[in-house]
Formats: sequence, C-alpha cells, structure tokens
Amino acid sequence: MRTARYLCMKSIKEHCEMKSRLNVGVVGLGRLGRVYAADLAHRVPNANLVAVADKQEGLAETFAKEYGIPTWYRSHLDLVHDREIDAVAVITSTSTHQEVVIEAAKNGKAIFCEKPISTSLEGALEMLRIVEKARVFFQMGFQRRFDSGYVAAKKKIEDGVIGTPVLLTSTSRDPFPPPLEFCDPKVSGGLIADMGIHDFDVGRMFMGDVRSVYAVGGTLAYPEMKKVGDIDNAVVNIVFENDTLGAVHLSRNAIFGYDIRAEIWGTKGSLQIGYFRETPILVMTQAGITHDVVPHFMERFEKAYRVQIQNFVDNVLNGREPSITGADGVAAMRVSLAATKSYHENRPVLLKEI
Amino acid sequence: MRTARYLCMKSIKEHCEMKSRLNVGVVGLGRLGRVYAADLAHRVPNANLVAVADKQEGLAETFAKEYGIPTWYRSHLDLVHDREIDAVAVITSTSTHQEVVIEAAKNGKAIFCEKPISTSLEGALEMLRIVEKARVFFQMGFQRRFDSGYVAAKKKIEDGVIGTPVLLTSTSRDPFPPPLEFCDPKVSGGLIADMGIHDFDVGRMFMGDVRSVYAVGGTLAYPEMKKVGDIDNAVVNIVFENDTLGAVHLSRNAIFGYDIRAEIWGTKGSLQIGYFRETPILVMTQAGITHDVVPHFMERFEKAYRVQIQNFVDNVLNGREPSITGADGVAAMRVSLAATKSYHENRPVLLKEI
Amino acid sequence: MRTARYLCMKSIKEHCEMKSRLNVGVVGLGRLGRVYAADLAHRVPNANLVAVADKQEGLAETFAKEYGIPTWYRSHLDLVHDREIDAVAVITSTSTHQEVVIEAAKNGKAIFCEKPISTSLEGALEMLRIVEKARVFFQMGFQRRFDSGYVAAKKKIEDGVIGTPVLLTSTSRDPFPPPLEFCDPKVSGGLIADMGIHDFDVGRMFMGDVRSVYAVGGTLAYPEMKKVGDIDNAVVNIVFENDTLGAVHLSRNAIFGYDIRAEIWGTKGSLQIGYFRETPILVMTQAGITHDVVPHFMERFEKAYRVQIQNFVDNVLNGREPSITGADGVAAMRVSLAATKSYHENRPVLLKEI
Amino acid sequence: MRTARYLCMKSIKEHCEMKSRLNVGVVGLGRLGRVYAADLAHRVPNANLVAVADKQEGLAETFAKEYGIPTWYRSHLDLVHDREIDAVAVITSTSTHQEVVIEAAKNGKAIFCEKPISTSLEGALEMLRIVEKARVFFQMGFQRRFDSGYVAAKKKIEDGVIGTPVLLTSTSRDPFPPPLEFCDPKVSGGLIADMGIHDFDVGRMFMGDVRSVYAVGGTLAYPEMKKVGDIDNAVVNIVFENDTLGAVHLSRNAIFGYDIRAEIWGTKGSLQIGYFRETPILVMTQAGITHDVVPHFMERFEKAYRVQIQNFVDNVLNGREPSITGADGVAAMRVSLAATKSYHENRPVLLKEI
Repeated sequence: MRTARYLCMKSIKEHCEMKSRLNVGVVGLGRLGRVYAADLAHRVPNANLVAVADKQEGLAETFAKEYGIPTWYRSHLDLVHDREIDAVAVITSTSTHQEVVIEAAKNGKAIFCEKPISTSLEGALEMLRIVEKARVFFQMGFQRRFDSGYVAAKKKIEDGVIGTPVLLTSTSRDPFPPPLEFCDPKVSGGLIADMGIHDFDVGRMFMGDVRSVYAVGGTLAYPEMKKVGDIDNAVVNIVFENDTLGAVHLSRNAIFGYDIRAEIWGTKGSLQIGYFRETPILVMTQAGITHDVVPHFMERFEKAYRVQIQNFVDNVLNGREPSITGADGVAAMRVSLAATKSYHENRPVLLKEI
Repeated sequence: MRTARYLCMKSIKEHCEMKSRLNVGVVGLGRLGRVYAADLAHRVPNANLVAVADKQEGLAETFAKEYGIPTWYRSHLDLVHDREIDAVAVITSTSTHQEVVIEAAKNGKAIFCEKPISTSLEGALEMLRIVEKARVFFQMGFQRRFDSGYVAAKKKIEDGVIGTPVLLTSTSRDPFPPPLEFCDPKVSGGLIADMGIHDFDVGRMFMGDVRSVYAVGGTLAYPEMKKVGDIDNAVVNIVFENDTLGAVHLSRNAIFGYDIRAEIWGTKGSLQIGYFRETPILVMTQAGITHDVVPHFMERFEKAYRVQIQNFVDNVLNGREPSITGADGVAAMRVSLAATKSYHENRPVLLKEI
Repeated sequence: MRTARYLCMKSIKEHCEMKSRLNVGVVGLGRLGRVYAADLAHRVPNANLVAVADKQEGLAETFAKEYGIPTWYRSHLDLVHDREIDAVAVITSTSTHQEVVIEAAKNGKAIFCEKPISTSLEGALEMLRIVEKARVFFQMGFQRRFDSGYVAAKKKIEDGVIGTPVLLTSTSRDPFPPPLEFCDPKVSGGLIADMGIHDFDVGRMFMGDVRSVYAVGGTLAYPEMKKVGDIDNAVVNIVFENDTLGAVHLSRNAIFGYDIRAEIWGTKGSLQIGYFRETPILVMTQAGITHDVVPHFMERFEKAYRVQIQNFVDNVLNGREPSITGADGVAAMRVSLAATKSYHENRPVLLKEI
Repeated sequence: MRTARYLCMKSIKEHCEMKSRLNVGVVGLGRLGRVYAADLAHRVPNANLVAVADKQEGLAETFAKEYGIPTWYRSHLDLVHDREIDAVAVITSTSTHQEVVIEAAKNGKAIFCEKPISTSLEGALEMLRIVEKARVFFQMGFQRRFDSGYVAAKKKIEDGVIGTPVLLTSTSRDPFPPPLEFCDPKVSGGLIADMGIHDFDVGRMFMGDVRSVYAVGGTLAYPEMKKVGDIDNAVVNIVFENDTLGAVHLSRNAIFGYDIRAEIWGTKGSLQIGYFRETPILVMTQAGITHDVVPHFMERFEKAYRVQIQNFVDNVLNGREPSITGADGVAAMRVSLAATKSYHENRPVLLKEI
C-alpha cells in the first residue's frame, strides 16, 4: 500500500503564502470537536476558524456565536463547499469520516482526520485512494505523538540513551466506561479497536510495524457490558516485524482516574512515560499521603491536542509532509482488527491475515 | 490603611454590559508583559487587546503587528489616554508603577498592577490614595494565588482537612541569578524584597498578617554579587499576628531548575505544594533514574498567569471586588522591608516598625 | 493432586516444646543459601543453626567457622542424617532438590525448599508423595509472599479496598543476565521458567489458579544467549480459572537496576507494588533530578528472605500449616511449563495440557 | 575544648585481639536500649552481649532470659564493675549519663553514649575530662550519621557533585508529642534541645561549626503543653562559622507520620535526604492515590541504629578513632542551648555566649 502524500495544490499554496494564515473549518462539534475548534479559534495564531458544522440542530450556530466564528453549517457538505476554507478538520463520528473526507478531498481542502481513520479497512483504503488522486494534504490525528512525554522519549531513543529498544508496553485505562450505547462493538469496534488504536499507534511510533498479535480479554468489571457484547479489560501481546516485543493493556476500570503510560526498554536503559497528578499538592493526614489524579483524557492531553492541530496548520502553511499519514492510520487500524480477531479466535493472528 | 475598593464608574460599566468584552491595553512589554499581552490577545475570550505600549523603540510596533493588535504606543501616557481602552495592565519596571498607575486612575481605567506594588512604601500609599479617590478598579498581580496547587491548598484548609494551620514554609529558588545590573538592591530592593515578596504574600494568604520577621542571608554562591551589594541566599523566620510560625527560603542557586514550594502544617494534617517535573518521562540508565525539572517561572506558572489575567478581566466585567487588593500589595511590601531591615540590623523586626 | 500436609511427628513436636528453639541445618551455601544461613545464625531468635553442608570443597567449613556453627558437612546426606537437626533448609541447585528433600523426609526432618520445587514435574510429584508419606512438614520458598508490599496488597484486597480483582500484572526484570552457563534452558528451564515462576506464584497468590497462558519472547538484548538457546525478554498473557486476566513481563535488561512490580486492578480501585530507590537521597544538578535504584534481588528482598525463614521456623515450632505448600510449588511450576510450551509452539496453552 | 580521644588501654586491646569479639554490656533498657541490646545480641556478629542492667525491678532479668544473655543487673554500678565486660553502651535517661559514664571510664570500659551527652554543659565537660584522663574509648550516638541517606549525601559532597554547600535545611517532625511528663523542659530541655539536637548535629556534619542562631516557636497544636511550659513547633535559623546558612524545622504535629528530612544546597547542585513510604504499595481509588508513611523513628532508623552500634564495636576492636566524639556531643549541645536561649530572649544568640 502506498502512502497518501501531500501534494499541495498550487492555488492553495499561493493563497497561503499571500495571507500567512490558514482558513480552517471544523466538521463535528462533539466533545473533541469543540476542543479543536476552541484551539483553532483562540490558540493557534496562524489559523482562522472561519466555519463550523454539526448535524445536531443549533449546535454549530450556538458554538459559532459564542466563539465569534462568522459562518456555521448544519451540513458538512456545505462546509466543504465553502470557498473561503483552505483546510477541514474532520472530527465527526468515525462512521462518517469516509463521506466527509472524500467530499473535502474533491473540493481541494487540506484535511485533518481524527483517529480512527474509518470503521472498515475497505472504507479507509477507498478514502485514501481518492485523497491521493485529489493530491490534497491529509494528516491523521493521534495526539499522543504530540504529548511532551512521547516526544521526549522519541528524542532520547534517537539520541541513543537507551540503546536499541527491545520491548514496549503501552497502557490505556479509562476511569469509567462509555455509555452502553457507545460500547456496542458494531458502533465502536469493541474495546480493543476503540481504545487500543492509540496504543497500537504508539507501538508503531517506537518499534515499527507489527508482525503478529495475541489478545485476551473479558467483561470483568461491568457485567452489563455483556448485553452489548463488549469487554472491559484486555491484554494484547505484540511481536513487531523486527522481532521486538510489545504488550498493550486496556481497561475501563481505572477507578481512580485516567491512566496512560508507556515504557520502552532498551539494551542500555529504559524510558517511562506517564503521570497521574493533576494538581501539585500532597495531602498528608493520618490516612497517609494522598494526591489527586488527572481525571480524563481532556485534562491529560489538552496541550497535546493543541500542539497537534498547530502542527497540522504549520505543515499545510509551510508545504511540509504530514506528520502522521493516512497509511499510519490504516496500519494502526489493521493492528486493531488483528487483535480483535485474535481475541475472538483465541489464537495469535498475523498482520498479513488482515 | 483602607483598602482601595473597586467602584466601577457608571460609564465603563454600561460600556462593558453592552459589549461583553473588555478592551485592555498592556503597558510594558518585557518578558512578563509579553506573556500577559499574548494571553489577552489569544487566550482570554472576553478581552480585546486593543493597544500595547513600551518605551523601547519599535518594540510595541513589532509586537502589535505580530499579534494583530490595532494600536501601539511608545509612551504609556498615550495609551492611558486612549479612550477605546477600559482597562490597563501595568507590567512596567517597578520604578514606573506609580506614574503609570496614577495616570491610568486619573483616566478612569480599571488597573491590573504586577507585583511589587512600588519601590517605596510612600510611593505605594500615595498611588493607592489616588486610585481610591478616582474610584477605579485596582487589582494586584501575585500569580501564585492562581496556581492550581495554591488554590487547592486554600480549599483543603477551608474544608478543615488539616485542622488549624500552625506553620507555613514557602520556598523560592531560582536556577540562576538575574544579570548583575538587576541585582543592585537600589534597583531590585535586594534578594529578600525582590524574590521574597511572593513568599510573603503566600504567607499572608494562608496564615494572615505578619507580626515580626528575622532574616539571615549571605553572598555564598556568586561572589560577584558582592560588588553590587546583593546576597544570593536568605532564610526568613516569621511570626504571624495569630502566633503561628513561618519560614521563607530564598536562593538564586537551585542549579537544577526552578524550585517553588510551600508547606502548611496543621493540627490534623499537612499540605505540600510544589512539583519539579517538566516532562512526564523518566530516564532509567546505569546512572540511576532521572527526570527533568521545570526550568523557570514561565514554564511553572504559565497557566497561573493566564488564569490571573482572566480573573482580572472577569472581575472588571462583572463588577466584582478585586481578588488581590492594593492593601495586599502594600502588606507584602512591608514584610519585605521589615525582613530586609532585619537582615541588615541582625535583629528581629516588628512589622509595626515599618 | 493432593496437598502435602504437615503432620508433625510426635517426637519432633515434643522436642520443640521442650527446648523452644528449632535446630536447623542448611544444605547448599550458594549466594542465597548463605543469606538463609546467616539469617538463621544471627537473626532468627528461635532457631539454632547447628550445621551447614555444601559439596564444594572447604566451603561449608569456612562458612561454619566464620559464623560459629558447630558442625559442617560436605555431603548433604551426612547433614540429613544428623540427629541433632530438626529441620533442613534446601537451597541447593534445583536439580538436586529431589534427592535432598526425599532423604530429609525419610529422616523425619521438617523441610524448607527454595523455589522452584524441581526440574521436572514428575520429580516434584514423586518428591511430594514421599514427603506426604513421611508425614513431615514441607514449606516452599517464594519470598515475595513475605515482602511488605505483597503482604499489604493481600490485606487491602481482603479488606475490600479495590473491590473484586480483575487484572494482575507482575513484572520481573534483572539488571543483567546470569552467566551464560546458567542460561542453558536444560539447566535453568529457560527464562520463562527460571524467572517467571515468581510471577506465576504471585499470580496465583492474588488471582487463583491459571486456566491458560500465551507467551512471546526473544533474544533481543544479548545475542550471545542464542548460543545456549535462551531468550532474554518475554511477555506472558494469563487467563485465570475465574476468567480474570494476567500479564507477566520478564526481562534480563533492566540496565538501571532491579525492577520488581505488581499491579492488581479491581472493580473499585487498584494497587501498585514496587519501588526502585535504594538510598533516600535525591541528587539535583543541571542533569536533572536523579536517584539510585535497588541493584538486585538481595537488596530488594533482604527482609523478605528473613521474614520467610522466620515464618518457616515459627510454623514448625508451633505446629502450624505451611504458609506455602508443595502443591503451590507444583502449581507455579506447571504454569512455567505451560508458558514455556506456549512460547515454543506459538499458541495459547491450557494448564490442563501439562 | 579538646577532643576526648580514644587511647585503647593495652590490656583491652590485647584481649580484643585474642578473642576477636567484644564483650558488651548495655545499661538502660528503655525503648531504645532494647533496640541496641537486641542488635548486640543477634545482629552484631563480633559482639557478645554479656550483661544488661536496668534499675526497673525485673526488667533486666526478663530481657536477659528472653535473649539468652548470661548476666543481668539492676544497678549499673554492678555492670560497670563486671570484669567480663569490655565495653558499655549507655542508653539510660540523660540525667544519669554523667554518673554511668564516669563510673564506666574509671573501670576502663570503652563507652558508647546515646545523645544528648548530658543535661548540663558543665556535667558534659566534667564527664569528658574524666573520660580523657581514664584514656578510654568514648563514642557518641547520633544515628542519622549512619543512615544510608546521610552517608550518601556526605559522599556526594566530598565527590564535588554539588560544588560548595551554601545552605542546609534539617527537619524533624514527630507524629505526636511525648507524654506530658516528658515534655517538661526541666526534664527534656524543651523541644528545641530535645528534638533539635539531631538537626544541630546534622548541621555540623555537613556545614561545620555554628556561629549564631535565632529561634522562634510556639505552643500551637497542643495547648496542654503550655502547662508544662513547652512548645510544639519551632524554626531555628543558623549562621555557620564559614558564613553559610542553616534552617532547622521542629514540630510535634506531623500527624501523618514521621518526617525527617535534610537538604543541602550547593553552588553546583543540591541534595535531598528523606523518605516517607513505609510499604512499597500505592492504593489508587476514587479518593486519589495514597501511600503510607514510616510511623516513627524506630521504623525509620532501625538500620541506622544497627549500623551505628556495629560501627562502635568495630572501632573498639580495631583500635580506631571514635566516629563521633564527645566534643561533637558537646558542640551539638551548645547549639541546643543557644537556640533555646534565643527563643526565650527573642534575639540572635552567638555560640560564644554559651
């Protein structure tokens, strides 16, 4: 599979050079969409958030008025046809990524697409074919790659601080499960795909492509999830193409807060990424010494989301390659699918089976 | 001494109500001034940064163009006469606070004044008299009061978690000294006043007014500072009016990074505020386990500065009392002066002597 | 399989009651044998270390003279025939456990047997049959069960602090590999058996019996280990009989020190066991903040070894059940064998296959 | 004042060489005396604990029988006259140190004397004159000097890791106050002397002799202590002879546990000594992340006490100088007296006044 490369259309590039700010539209104003939109409105100096769209009645209008955004749409199609717009951030539910991205590509927009790339591998590949044909810029969203801990770890490894990496662990634990209706694997892809895709991308970031996976899991903390057919805990073993090893831990019951970690073990040293504390205060009483915990992903990755969308804007304005390609999005998805298959079939699954 | 209270002039108040955004001008674009200005430009949604002023040739213009600010001045007087402006943030060198604040007050502006309030007690009191007479809003800047650690500690104490506070320690340690020319006590007030004023304000925040202080210090790490007559380390004992105790530690040689801490010891428990880590990564090699450190105040208090200026804007727009009054600024200054006097005379000094 | 129960022979029991101290002999004075022997000599008040034996010329004599132990033997058979001795601690190389334990049992000694129980499952079962027939006390050594962290975790779980445990991780990482000759899987059983048996026992301690395992591994850090056919890193997935999950991480390249951890995730909270710091000192320089690490197992588990052998002596003297039975030793071994088989056959292996 | 030097009497030295073990007697079987006695009985291989003495009816006998010690006395005089005994550990209440030490010296015993050296400066000096005249070995007990953290810090400083030390902080905080009857300053010397003497010794260990002190304090947490005239919190500023600075924090209300810390700030880096955790386990629930705390001095310094008494035995047996001299004991006492005087007179006090 080839990488969908960015080939900035001449007209847009010149446009960018002339005005030095990128006109961006955001499609999808769910929880995460609002974060990106607020960042683009207030915190990304070289972006103009010129329009927002959301299919929920009144949502785009309310948001636009609150943030002083001149234009709002209920339909994403209207937004991607807006000629004022250079770039589109696609933060809709995964099932609509394909439709929105394809339409944006056809209209020559630079595209930022939140993970996961699509609900089906075929959909993703079709989408990327059209993106490539349209020669538009396309960047995936995986915000951990922009978190200072992951960035520093990458740099340390490149500097040789830990020698050759031989084993990675990546952990994602949510403080509570999503609403039951979102747990239905037909909607979410299931725990392993829905949650693990971040960890599989982290694995690829540090260790390279995946050769095989084996997953075990269970519905152990929230019996009601059995009704919709999802599990709440899983452990996934990985063997990478270069023979190194990985282990991904996924859970919905990190009752105390949001637990995101990674460790990279090398021949000369190791790196640990992660932290728990939200507030720099210790409470010391007869009950012991206690500190609080970052409650959820927004508090943990607030800055990473901002840095990521800034990176997208900078890449487009400066004619650079995307930091995370469509191929990266597809590759992480294939690991998700393989791990899910492994869980269902209780056997190691080779990536080439997917 | 009475508190300079905010009595929002009718004209401004109506103005605010109509437009729901506060037009702010920033005077002084030094390192900290640029932080406040950038926050007001991009991160405080209900503020418009409409003008900046700095006496250094070209600085205000360059900054204004970079941030898209419509107006710039070289003279602060021109800025405070600008009728578009509702509020002025005074971030100039301390020696000019008096002149700028008085002129702003006379022009009916709401005023935010960075610590320390003034270089002399008389100057501060004169300034506050005029502010009070002009019935304008006046709020001091002490950003630690807006840091999540200090805020959480205040809340825990109010909730009774540690019983009655009996002892406070507050620590400020810089990773390196300021340039020699800024160390001259005639300019800076000396280490105890320049650096300790934050800790004295923290002391007042948690324990109340100060009765007496005793300070020891020395030029121990940087002998060259003796030339300008400053010290680089000091320890200040405090007895508060309610008989509780305090200890302030000041140093210019926290070689490893920026070290800001506070502890409050109560009859039922204790609180520790502070953290060192900049990046959530541990490096584990044969040299041991290592993590990095927040390098300096901007990284440590970036968010507190933003929350503080947001608080100022919200207070003005909503007709609220200032969160930190001019009287607070004067009180912290008097502790600084008493501690400096104690150091020079090598005896405990009562606050009422100042 | 039935548990080998302790049925204290009348003669020994009366003997104990009369003298209130247990006469112990230690067989095997390797690194760990010397630790147990020194503890029994100086730190277990109700034990008399009356004899030591080691097949290496002169070793037992030298040790005995240094510690003031009255009797020494080169042959373990001579020691187990010594009528002064009530109890024998078997710390020889695993391949001789069977012979020594059986001879000790036949001579009516109470027996402490260091893990792993044997080099073969058949050998272990045969040994336990004879132990049971001889009706002697038999206790396995798994020192983590006596470490304050694991003990506290067990207590917290019993107190309901974390609700129902659903997932366990257990980690063993050595700072360097053993000498190549000890890595030969024909001698050591291979990384998974040799190192992982502690983690498998920890798994059983917290989660119960194991249903199936899947292991991946590789020779990634020390290519020379390929010559002897061993691996240096492995990850083992576990599904317990009660459907809960486990993950065991094994490595020989924790270059920075000795890394032993466990986490237990429950429906109401989680527990983490582990620490790194050897000395309570932080070094803070421009290189960051650094602390040292417990270098290896002796420093980490010094106290646990002492508590464990004390527990053995107390159990024998007081006619109590063994804290860790032979059946526990066999069960951990079966998990090791299953995980090793899984690694070789690259498929999940059910415990009942072993 | 001259140092009381060890001049091993010929007869004892030869005795030691012949038998290679030191016969020790312990006078005083209070809480700490029992710790030293148990260490000497079981954990110091080159010591024989041959006798114990305590004036409380039956205490010495009970202890001796439990630990298998052949001889016990009610009167310390009988013990120091016992010709079997080479060395005496004096762990009695401070008010009897003088009498016991003098009698031991006259009988040619090597002496270990727990801090503080005496209840009066005159008493201490008189005692040391007799010790010196008797030419017996005399070593003070200050166990922090043998704690791995303080030892490592001393080594780091000698290795130049932090450049030149310029400021020391030393903290002692107890989890609860002693019984009221022990708080009477006429008995205990008061908080500053009773508790602070450890910190003053730590100050001398790292920074050298003290020039002046200033102390503030109060009865803030336990009003009932006012009845006996003691305070429960104090902060002591120190200026050392070499112009460097110190700060000592003393408190009886570290409600959460035992809080012993020191920090040494140098021109090239800093060191922090201290830890809180008793058990290597974190409890993570919705209340946050919690760990326990070392409850009191015995748990914190268990090993340091053992290392210290081992050091005493080794020094005597090998004819070495005492690790902590009588002069060290006197010097720490003089700082205590100066700081107490400073508190009462509310002024800085020079050591030469004492």
